[in-house]
Amino acid sequence: MPEHTRPARGMRDFLPEDVRRRDYVIDVVRDVYRRYGFEPLETPALENIETLTGKYGDEGNKLMFKVLRRGEHEASGETDLALRYDLTVPLARVVAEHRGKLPRLFRRYQIQPVWRADRPARGRFREFYQCDADAIGSRSPVIEAELCAAVCDVLLTLGFREFSLRLNHRGLLRGLLDEARVPGTLHDQALVALDKLDKIGRSGVRQDMAARGIPAGACDRLLDVFARGGPAGLPEPEAANAGVLAHVTQHVGGHAEGLAAIADLREIVRLCAVTSARPYVIIDPSLARGLSYYTGAIMEVAVADLPGSLGGGGRYDGLIGMFLGENIPACGFSLGLERLLVVMAERNMFPPGVQASGADVMVTLFEGEPAEEALRLGADLRAARVRAEVYPDPDKLGKQFKYAAGRGIRYVLVMGADERARQAVTVKNMETGEQTSVPRSEVAAHLAAFVRHAPGA
Amino acid sequence: MPEHTRPARGMRDFLPEDVRRRDYVIDVVRDVYRRYGFEPLETPALENIETLTGKYGDEGNKLMFKVLRRGEHEASGETDLALRYDLTVPLARVVAEHRGKLPRLFRRYQIQPVWRADRPARGRFREFYQCDADAIGSRSPVIEAELCAAVCDVLLTLGFREFSLRLNHRGLLRGLLDEARVPGTLHDQALVALDKLDKIGRSGVRQDMAARGIPAGACDRLLDVFARGGPAGLPEPEAANAGVLAHVTQHVGGHAEGLAAIADLREIVRLCAVTSARPYVIIDPSLARGLSYYTGAIMEVAVADLPGSLGGGGRYDGLIGMFLGENIPACGFSLGLERLLVVMAERNMFPPGVQASGADVMVTLFEGEPAEEALRLGADLRAARVRAEVYPDPDKLGKQFKYAAGRGIRYVLVMGADERARQAVTVKNMETGEQTSVPRSEVAAHLAAFVRHAPGA
Repeated sequence: MPEHTRPARGMRDFLPEDVRRRDYVIDVVRDVYRRYGFEPLETPALENIETLTGKYGDEGNKLMFKVLRRGEHEASGETDLALRYDLTVPLARVVAEHRGKLPRLFRRYQIQPVWRADRPARGRFREFYQCDADAIGSRSPVIEAELCAAVCDVLLTLGFREFSLRLNHRGLLRGLLDEARVPGTLHDQALVALDKLDKIGRSGVRQDMAARGIPAGACDRLLDVFARGGPAGLPEPEAANAGVLAHVTQHVGGHAEGLAAIADLREIVRLCAVTSARPYVIIDPSLARGLSYYTGAIMEVAVADLPGSLGGGGRYDGLIGMFLGENIPACGFSLGLERLLVVMAERNMFPPGVQASGADVMVTLFEGEPAEEALRLGADLRAARVRAEVYPDPDKLGKQFKYAAGRGIRYVLVMGADERARQAVTVKNMETGEQTSVPRSEVAAHLAAFVRHAPGA
Repeated sequence: MPEHTRPARGMRDFLPEDVRRRDYVIDVVRDVYRRYGFEPLETPALENIETLTGKYGDEGNKLMFKVLRRGEHEASGETDLALRYDLTVPLARVVAEHRGKLPRLFRRYQIQPVWRADRPARGRFREFYQCDADAIGSRSPVIEAELCAAVCDVLLTLGFREFSLRLNHRGLLRGLLDEARVPGTLHDQALVALDKLDKIGRSGVRQDMAARGIPAGACDRLLDVFARGGPAGLPEPEAANAGVLAHVTQHVGGHAEGLAAIADLREIVRLCAVTSARPYVIIDPSLARGLSYYTGAIMEVAVADLPGSLGGGGRYDGLIGMFLGENIPACGFSLGLERLLVVMAERNMFPPGVQASGADVMVTLFEGEPAEEALRLGADLRAARVRAEVYPDPDKLGKQFKYAAGRGIRYVLVMGADERARQAVTVKNMETGEQTSVPRSEVAAHLAAFVRHAPGA
């Protein structure tokens, strides 16, 4: 029997405390994205299967949840729809479909679940939220700098202090790969291997590159570029980044695209320096990012003492126009909600109010007392924006108090015959045990002063 | 080509203006539900197919979106998952699965999409949101009264004034059906027919009942009960409801369940009278509600001049325990987000701010001017909670203004060489055309005073 009541494999029920934590983080992300002028977009969970097929490689085709055709076609085993696999392909579809209605520079955020039939693991789920911000329609490095600043603002608002936003550039990587004489046809392979440098180290990458057919000499020349150990220990991020750029400039030689990428990175860092991103942006020439669609700057954000990233993004000028057959400039960043939540829970980063119970106040009910007095009090409290539960059954008072304590409710109101005779309400503070008698006509305002909720909070 | 960029049949893309309207309504619903002590729950979009199969009748089994098994099983055409069809069966599953963690009285709200492969029609979609509030664990009529009050608060907060919350009781209907001598085995059939009284009238219901095998005499006796025309014209809802209850009391004779239902309705109405629901609750003995799982009071909310309902609910003491093999009392209400939005759009009920652009302010950028000054200004504005876009490309000023106008942005800031020399910013009010020079050090506070956003708003 219990077997049948589990959520589907790799998916989760979010009980009230979970939802409150999720909503807290989502509200922060949304609020910051909005402050940067990003506007909300939502797309359907299901897409026509042709829209998604072939967009995520073989892996994606396998991990996609496909929906059986209905009615007379059900027995055929054919599928016509699939669940959203990311938020980027739907964005490209929306840009093509609604182009006339969208501004020329379209900054959109989208915070919705995506579904992937990955093998479930710790922190990896089959239904998970992405928090994406993308700017469509400009090639200016102002876009990259503002995205970096927005991501840093999100993390700072959530309470993170030790984190880094690593920055690199696909043009620089191409320059370094060419100059190391990695054959052009093997660039994507080399990037996939390089992406694992953090995890498997130099010797691991060397083995992996060999397995992918990359000549040992090219591999060694490439790894030599990253041998200097990074910018650790340098006091100022600007000085560190200037040092890294000087270093890689030597290694790209006269490679035009590589040099243009270095100029682009220099400008992005210069612009970031006037924003909240200044202390966090670190140029890391070994950052590769798995996805093949990036064309320019790439970014990844990570917190200290935690392997892996909290999110990443970059410029991808070829993807958004795919349904239009055009090249439309685009740059975006995707924060993973689930990892943010895991880290914040482990580090106790939620404000106390977020974990609190749903109701601030509980109104008790007595056997033989008129229930409408309790409901009237409830109505008065709610009109004053106090969150109030009316206990619905005339149970023993002890049982009602026990229920309120178990729910974490802060104030319990008692209005028995005594209180009614005096036109008063007894207010019990459940944290201190203190009991106060408050005139019935003042009780809503009295409690509203203790439990203030902003609209929408 | 355009064919491929449409959303899936019966589903919709929500562009920024749409999302803002949806979020506005959802925030109101959520805020009111919370004020009544309801706590948030979220469940996965996908459920194990056994969890859903057989719970919604033949119709539901047909309209469910089923997901193909993956990997080696894909070719088999077998399905193992299905998309959520409503929010009630997942609630029942959660109550069984997490019982130890949930309070004895569990008031939960859930605002999430559901999916049904219905034939799309005006206002009917294949992906749509339900806004459910349910209270699990009490048989008290306090629950019904508070649900009625919460629903009325939602509609009042959204700006509705002319609406009614029709109230009836399955026990009363059983009493009336028994007394009219409708055979017990045909009660469900009779209710389905009766549910259409509004739409197809008395003669239509008579035909429909005949087709369902209900004897003509029983049908006529039943319809006679509803012949008195309802409570229209009576000045006070209490008087009208008392009249209706007196009328139906005659028709249930000595039917014990019918009499208990009348007592229950009388108590619900009495309790509603001290809440915001007072002017809106109307007892309507002909209200049937389609679903078979209701066991007690049933409710439906409708606005004037609009056929159909905006939502409904009732008491269903048999359903929530289905996975536990127990009888667990439950009562809930479901508001349909899509119909609320359609009506509110038709009647221009959205506050002006809801439709406004994403950004309050745009900072212009000049060829040859340092972009970091614009970014620094953007950062200052955002720190003051102003929503600010930085125009990313050094286009002609006219083009930048045109873009801002098209986006509905209220203030455009210009900081050219002149302004910088004076350490000032030119602020153009796009509605009035007025231009003001504001000291650079005061501009963020200056604009924050005009465009105040509550946190989370």
